Amino acid sequence: MAAEDATFEDMREILKSAPGPNTQSGAKAVARDATLTKPAGSLGRMEELAQWYVTWRDPDAVGLERPRVAVFVANHGVAARNVSAYPQAVTAQMVANFQAGGGAINQICTIADAELRVYEMGLDYPTADFTIGPAMSEGDCARAMAYGMMAVEDGVDTLCLGEMGIGNTTSAAALSCALFGGAPGDWVGPGAGVDAAGVAHKASIVAEGLALHGEESGDPLEALRRVGGMELAAIAGAVLAARMARVPVILDGFACCAAAAVLYKMDPGALDHCVVGHVSKEPGHARLLDAMGLTPILDLGLGLGEGSGAATALLILRAAVACHTGMATFAEAGVATAE
Amino acid sequence: MAAEDATFEDMREILKSAPGPNTQSGAKAVARDATLTKPAGSLGRMEELAQWYVTWRDPDAVGLERPRVAVFVANHGVAARNVSAYPQAVTAQMVANFQAGGGAINQICTIADAELRVYEMGLDYPTADFTIGPAMSEGDCARAMAYGMMAVEDGVDTLCLGEMGIGNTTSAAALSCALFGGAPGDWVGPGAGVDAAGVAHKASIVAEGLALHGEESGDPLEALRRVGGMELAAIAGAVLAARMARVPVILDGFACCAAAAVLYKMDPGALDHCVVGHVSKEPGHARLLDAMGLTPILDLGLGLGEGSGAATALLILRAAVACHTGMATFAEAGVATAE
Repeated sequence: MAAEDATFEDMREILKSAPGPNTQSGAKAVARDATLTKPAGSLGRMEELAQWYVTWRDPDAVGLERPRVAVFVANHGVAARNVSAYPQAVTAQMVANFQAGGGAINQICTIADAELRVYEMGLDYPTADFTIGPAMSEGDCARAMAYGMMAVEDGVDTLCLGEMGIGNTTSAAALSCALFGGAPGDWVGPGAGVDAAGVAHKASIVAEGLALHGEESGDPLEALRRVGGMELAAIAGAVLAARMARVPVILDGFACCAAAAVLYKMDPGALDHCVVGHVSKEPGHARLLDAMGLTPILDLGLGLGEGSGAATALLILRAAVACHTGMATFAEAGVATAE
Repeated sequence: MAAEDATFEDMREILKSAPGPNTQSGAKAVARDATLTKPAGSLGRMEELAQWYVTWRDPDAVGLERPRVAVFVANHGVAARNVSAYPQAVTAQMVANFQAGGGAINQICTIADAELRVYEMGLDYPTADFTIGPAMSEGDCARAMAYGMMAVEDGVDTLCLGEMGIGNTTSAAALSCALFGGAPGDWVGPGAGVDAAGVAHKASIVAEGLALHGEESGDPLEALRRVGGMELAAIAGAVLAARMARVPVILDGFACCAAAAVLYKMDPGALDHCVVGHVSKEPGHARLLDAMGLTPILDLGLGLGEGSGAATALLILRAAVACHTGMATFAEAGVATAE
């Protein structure tokens, strides 16, 4: 598949051919966990995370060595409908801030020893306003997915995904509503900081968009192109590419998970190589995770995006994998087991 | 106060003279947070943590530079009553494991770039069985507290506290019950892995101990010496010393928090310089945090002790402080503020 000629059919074919976990690695992880110098189950979610992580890697892979935080950035035509507390110019200003090292995500990546890549997606060419027509053509959407796939470069062993884009919680709400149903008001929230009237306005914009696109947004990829955004399409592509390469993924907040949900609706097993880093304070996120049966690692009341919750959860995953790979066994340490 | 002559009266005097937060640092932290390139409140608990942390430091302190994880280890006479799934010899075996770098806490400290200190407290001389008499004399208990105070050495700017000691969830349950009331069954749990019958047995042991000590354990320090343990006394001492030095503290699980609760019952503000790293799967922990109005940072189903939850939460605190100190301001980055 040439990226510039990518189609939805390509994406469907890729997903159909996606590999499952490595059962040999999985068996090895379960066996090793039982030998480590701790009571069984005493590391709780950290044990689960380590075993999940190892299961998606080769049996001879060592630890978590080269994590990448990929932040996709795009602008949204629907921003013209006054759905955000911030002007659209902030999207480009924040890219400059990331490039200068001044964003929250830069600081978290330093602490997590993760490589940060910011993928700017034609900020001067926002998607179309989805209340007037589809946000993207199929070609533009598939190309954005293919662009996102490039984040999974050789050697990257863990991928944290995030986004930035003024207006994108409105797209995420519309996309979630198209995928999972319910009322627009179930999925909208304050985003970067609109008040109650602003939230109600966002719900009316989502309703307007969904009424326009109607049943045509019943197909997940159609929903993505009609009411989604380029950064959301790129995230869906990155999740898909990570699956092909068996690279474990940490998802971030509402917009990121709405993008991943497109794949989930195509195949409920499509996100088995993903965990959710945190549950956002944006109310649609908890609803979305519930709909997909996903349990977040952290609950810190974050609502920033930028991959900040995913990169913070990477710290927990790093600690979990370090315990799994580095701890002594009962036999090695000469520690007595339970009586 | 000479450590070998320490008394409960000394500890009461120290607590009375304990300093509050640095109001100048606090005001500076609040002002700075409002200028950073993020929507107000969008880093949620991480903002609160950073502001709490900075508030306990000098106004000119920079970041989080030298964290120490202090793990206090002791043996318990009540272990003779078969309250644990593991033999008492495991306490010393685990100290050797920590010294060789094989424990979970070693791996987490490596990820968190934290110094690990393991404080072994006379493992061949356990406390007395609290169902027969007081676990410790006042002098032994006060000396154990003074020993714990030594963990707060010059230059340490953050202290994570943890413990290891076969039998100590039984002591922690008895101590919690003495401090906060309720039935012994409200406070006991599986610890390192006893079954339902074992949990019921632990409740009966706690009931036996509390019946023996009666109203004399109504005083928090008396409760600590009568049904607590040396590592619990050391943790209480370390929390107190950290307060004197305005060193922020991350508490760990049930046993650690039961030790800190002794100070809370002496003065409800005594733990204002502490946060709780996680809520353990040991059921008494959530009850204890609720009784003290403390909200844990993480909920990962851990139940290991060793300071593992506190050291994992240190990762979150590090990320929070890095955002607070390292992010660009709106003015520095030329980013537009909310409209």
